[in-house]
Amino acid sequence: MTTTAVLLIDCPDRKGLVAAIANFLVREYDANVLNADQHQDAALGLFFMRVEFQSDAPHCDGPGFHAAFAPLAVQLNLNWSITFAAREQKVAIFVSHYLHCLADLLHRHQTGELPCTLALIVSNHESARPLAEFYGIPFQFTPVTPVTKEAVEQQHLDLLADNEIDLIVLARYMQILSPRFVEAHPLRIINVHHSFLPAFTGAKPYHAAFARGVKLIGATSHYVTAELDEGPIIEQDVTRVSQSDQLPDLIQKGRDLERLVLSRAVRWHLAHRILSYANKTVIFS
Amino acid sequence: MTTTAVLLIDCPDRKGLVAAIANFLVREYDANVLNADQHQDAALGLFFMRVEFQSDAPHCDGPGFHAAFAPLAVQLNLNWSITFAAREQKVAIFVSHYLHCLADLLHRHQTGELPCTLALIVSNHESARPLAEFYGIPFQFTPVTPVTKEAVEQQHLDLLADNEIDLIVLARYMQILSPRFVEAHPLRIINVHHSFLPAFTGAKPYHAAFARGVKLIGATSHYVTAELDEGPIIEQDVTRVSQSDQLPDLIQKGRDLERLVLSRAVRWHLAHRILSYANKTVIFS
Amino acid sequence: MTTTAVLLIDCPDRKGLVAAIANFLVREYDANVLNADQHQDAALGLFFMRVEFQSDAPHCDGPGFHAAFAPLAVQLNLNWSITFAAREQKVAIFVSHYLHCLADLLHRHQTGELPCTLALIVSNHESARPLAEFYGIPFQFTPVTPVTKEAVEQQHLDLLADNEIDLIVLARYMQILSPRFVEAHPLRIINVHHSFLPAFTGAKPYHAAFARGVKLIGATSHYVTAELDEGPIIEQDVTRVSQSDQLPDLIQKGRDLERLVLSRAVRWHLAHRILSYANKTVIFS
Amino acid sequence: MTTTAVLLIDCPDRKGLVAAIANFLVREYDANVLNADQHQDAALGLFFMRVEFQSDAPHCDGPGFHAAFAPLAVQLNLNWSITFAAREQKVAIFVSHYLHCLADLLHRHQTGELPCTLALIVSNHESARPLAEFYGIPFQFTPVTPVTKEAVEQQHLDLLADNEIDLIVLARYMQILSPRFVEAHPLRIINVHHSFLPAFTGAKPYHAAFARGVKLIGATSHYVTAELDEGPIIEQDVTRVSQSDQLPDLIQKGRDLERLVLSRAVRWHLAHRILSYANKTVIFS
Repeated sequence: MTTTAVLLIDCPDRKGLVAAIANFLVREYDANVLNADQHQDAALGLFFMRVEFQSDAPHCDGPGFHAAFAPLAVQLNLNWSITFAAREQKVAIFVSHYLHCLADLLHRHQTGELPCTLALIVSNHESARPLAEFYGIPFQFTPVTPVTKEAVEQQHLDLLADNEIDLIVLARYMQILSPRFVEAHPLRIINVHHSFLPAFTGAKPYHAAFARGVKLIGATSHYVTAELDEGPIIEQDVTRVSQSDQLPDLIQKGRDLERLVLSRAVRWHLAHRILSYANKTVIFS
Repeated sequence: MTTTAVLLIDCPDRKGLVAAIANFLVREYDANVLNADQHQDAALGLFFMRVEFQSDAPHCDGPGFHAAFAPLAVQLNLNWSITFAAREQKVAIFVSHYLHCLADLLHRHQTGELPCTLALIVSNHESARPLAEFYGIPFQFTPVTPVTKEAVEQQHLDLLADNEIDLIVLARYMQILSPRFVEAHPLRIINVHHSFLPAFTGAKPYHAAFARGVKLIGATSHYVTAELDEGPIIEQDVTRVSQSDQLPDLIQKGRDLERLVLSRAVRWHLAHRILSYANKTVIFS
Repeated sequence: MTTTAVLLIDCPDRKGLVAAIANFLVREYDANVLNADQHQDAALGLFFMRVEFQSDAPHCDGPGFHAAFAPLAVQLNLNWSITFAAREQKVAIFVSHYLHCLADLLHRHQTGELPCTLALIVSNHESARPLAEFYGIPFQFTPVTPVTKEAVEQQHLDLLADNEIDLIVLARYMQILSPRFVEAHPLRIINVHHSFLPAFTGAKPYHAAFARGVKLIGATSHYVTAELDEGPIIEQDVTRVSQSDQLPDLIQKGRDLERLVLSRAVRWHLAHRILSYANKTVIFS
Repeated sequence: MTTTAVLLIDCPDRKGLVAAIANFLVREYDANVLNADQHQDAALGLFFMRVEFQSDAPHCDGPGFHAAFAPLAVQLNLNWSITFAAREQKVAIFVSHYLHCLADLLHRHQTGELPCTLALIVSNHESARPLAEFYGIPFQFTPVTPVTKEAVEQQHLDLLADNEIDLIVLARYMQILSPRFVEAHPLRIINVHHSFLPAFTGAKPYHAAFARGVKLIGATSHYVTAELDEGPIIEQDVTRVSQSDQLPDLIQKGRDLERLVLSRAVRWHLAHRILSYANKTVIFS
C-alpha cells in the first residue's frame, strides 16, 4: 500500500541538512519525493523544510517513522512533525452573526477544496443553524453573557476535546478568547481580521479605514496568540476603494477579502504548508 | 481664442447646485463641458465638484471669472478655485540620497507625463546633481546640519518664493520639515512614505514590515501636514512578498511602489484632480 | 412621498447638455441630485450621463416623467431610460453543474448585496435544486438534449415571459444560447467566462491558460451578444499563478475570480450603473 | 576562497534525485546550500531543480565541476548547467524610440538591482544616445532600412560575438528579428510585449485593447522564439482601466507595466532563477 506523508522541519541551519534528510527518506523508505521546499532565514540562522513524499514501505506509519527518524532528529537538532495523509483532520468553525465566511467555507468544503472533516459549528447566535443543517454539520448554540462566559468556555473546551478537533477556525467570531483557551491550542486557531494588519487593530477596522481615507482596504488571516491581532500573519489581501465607496461599500468589499484570506489560510493549514517561527509564517507552495 | 479651465468646488450640499453651476457656465461663457464629476459625502453633508470646460468667450480669464462667479459663490456658500490651462505650474523636487523617485519623475517629465515646469531640484546631498544636470533642471545643494537647519529652511523658503513654486514634491527627502514650512504650503507639499499607511509610520517602515511578517508591502503618497505621516492620503499601492523576500528584497520591491504612487499623485495634482477635506482626498477621474 | 430614480442618457455630445438636464430636474421636480456622473467619448463624439435623484413631487413617476421629459429628449437627441427605485427587478439564474457562482449569488442576495427578486433558477441538471430550495427560490429543471434543445428554449422563453424577468444571469451555464434567444434580451443577459477575454475564448480556457504558461489567470463578466465571448465586457479580474499551480489549482483559483466578476456585474446592472455602446461598457461609480 | 554557484537541473522525474544531488554536493564540495528549490511537472513526468550553494573547496570551478558531476549527470539523465557567481554576465539592450524601459533598466543597473555588465546599447534611432552616454554605456547606432536589414543583422551578430554577450534585452525594440538571429540565441533574448499575452498579439496592442473595451491592460516579458509573441512567458502584470482612460492613458499606464515586467525578467534571468520547458517557464523564488 502506498502511503503519502508530509514532513515539516525547522532547525538551526547547518551544512548537509538537505542531504541528510533526503538520504534518510531514500534509505529507510525508498521514498518518492513529491514536493520539497526549503527556506532559510539568514539573519536568524534558521532552516525550514517541507517534504511531501510517497512510500510503499510497510513500516511507513506514525510509530515506525518516529522510531526511525528520532536519532537523526536529535543529532541534527530538528523540530519536526509528520502527518500521514490517511488521517483526515477535524475542524471546528466558530461564528457569530456575520455568516459570509461560514457560508463560503461550507461551500468550499462541499466542493472538495478543504479536505477535512467539518466536525462542529459553534455559535453564540442561532442564525448559523440553518446553514449548518443544510450542509449537515453538527451545530452547537452556546450563547455567551458576561456571567456565563467562563462556563461556556469550559463547554467549548469539552466539545473540542470530545470531537478531537485539530483546527479551530474563527469565521468572524466576535467573542474574545481567554489566554487559557488560546494557549491550549498553539498554532491551532486561525482568525480573520477585517483590516490590513498591523493597520487598524481592534474593533471596527472598516470605520477606522473610512475615517483615515485609505485608498485600499484589506483583510488578514492569522494564527491566534495571547495578544489580540498580533499573531503570525498567514495571508493578506487588499482591494481598491475610492470616495465613491461609503462605509457600507467598504464593509461589502471587505467581505470578499475576508472570505479569500480565511479560506486560503485554512486550505494551507490543512495541507501542512505553513510553518511558524518568530511570530511570522513560512508558506510552502 | 479657446480657453480651457478647471473649476473646483466644495460646499455644503443642497438642491440645485449642479444646475446652478452648469447654468452659470453656459449663460456666462457658452461653455463646453469636457468633464464634470461630482461627489457627495452624505455623512458630512458636503458636495464636491470638478468641471473642466472650454470657452471662446473673450472674458474667460482669471479676473473676469472671479468677478462674474463671486456673487453665485457667495449665494451658494462655495469654496472654489479656478485654473486656466494656459498657466503651467512650477514644481520643486526635494530629494536626499535615494534617487529612484527623482530619476523616475525626471524621465516622466521628459516623456510629457507631467505637464509642468520643473523649476528646481533641492538636495542635502550632491548625489542628485548629475541627474539634474542631465535633464537640465537647476540644482540647489543645501546641506543640513543641526546648526544650519533653520538657516537652510529660510534659504528654501526664499528659493521657493523666488521661483514662484506651486508644488513641492518630497521624493524621498529625509529631512523633517518644520511646522512653519508646512503651514506655509497647505496642500502644496506631496510626500511619499514607504509603507501602507497607517501601518508602519515613522522611520524604517520596511524593517518594521519585515519584522511583523506581513504578506504585502505598500507605499503611500500624501499631502504633508503638521503631523508626520498623518496628512490626507492621495494614493497607495501594494505588492506581494513572501518568506523568500529578505529585507533588501522588500526595499527593492518597495522602490517600484514608491515610484508609482508618487508619480500618480503628482500627475493628479497637476491636473487639478484632487480635492481634500476632512483629512481625506477626493480623486476625480 | 419621496421618490428615488435613476436617469441614464446617451447622446451625441453638444454644449449645454448638463445644464439642460439639471435644469429640467430642478424645474420640473425640485430634484435633489444624489449622484451625477458624466462620461464623454471624445473620439466618437458621444456623451453619457447617469443621474440618481430624489423628488417629493407627486407626478414623479413613470408616465409623468415620460410625458414631461420627452420634448427635451427629442430636442437634444437623447437615448434615455429612467428607473424608479420602488420597482424591484426580477432576475433568473441559469446554471449547469458547477454551483460555486450560484451559491455565491444566493448568499449575496440573502445578505442584501443584490437588491432584486430572484424569481427563478433554471438548470439542465438536478444538482442545483437543494441550494435553490434552501434559499427558497423556484427551481426549474429543464434537461437539454440535441433533440429537445429547441423545445426547451421555447420553454425558457415562456418561463422568462411568465415571470416578467428583467435580467438573466448565466452562472456557468454550459449551454449555448440561440441567436433568437440572445436577440430577444439585448443587454439583459450577463455571462461569466472563465478567462481574461479576449484571451482563451471558447471551451476549456483554464486548460488553454495552463498550456500557454501564463503567469496570471482571469475571469470576465460580459453581456451576451450573438457572437460567443464577444459581448461588451463588464468586469474582469486576475490572480497570480506559478509553476506550483497545476490545472486543478488554476480551476480552483479561477472559481474565486468567477464569483467576484459575476457578482459585481450583477450588482452594477441592478443599480443601473452600466451603459453600453460600441461593444464596450461605461461603469458609473 | 569561498565560491558561490547556481546549479540548474531538469530531467525525467525518478526516485532519489534530491538525495543523489545533495549527496554529491556535500561529498565532493562540502557544500553549504543557500537555496534549493524543486518543481515537478506531474503530467509530463519532469523534475526541475535549482541549487545555490557555497563551497570552500579549491576545485569548485567550471572545469572541476564538469569533470566531477558528469558521471552522475549521465547516470541520472540530467540536463544541467552551472554558473559561478564570480563571472558577471554581459548584457546588450536593443531599443528603438520609446525609451522608458531603457531609462528604467539603466537606473536599476546603476542602483545595483541588475548585477551584470551592460556592455552595449543598440538602436535604430539616435534618440537613446544621450541616456547611453549619461550612464557610460557604449552605444551603437545601426539604422535599418528594408535594403540594409540583412547587413545590419550581420553587424549585430558581430557586435554580440565581439562583446561576448550573454543576454539580449529587447526594450521596446521595434524591428522583427530573423529566425536565424533568434535561433542563434535560444533562451537568451528577452522581449517585452505591451499586452497581456496571448491577448492582443502583434502590432498596436493598446489600440486593440481600447477597441475591445477590456477592464484591465497588461504587459508580458518572454523569451523570444521563432514565432512572434509565442515564446515562453516569464512575467506578466496588469492594471485596471476604466472609461475615463482614453488611448493615451492606456499607453501611459502600460509603460509602467512594461518597465516592471521587463526588469523583473532581466533580474531573474541574471540570477539563474528561470528554467524553460514545454514553452513555459519555471521561476525559482
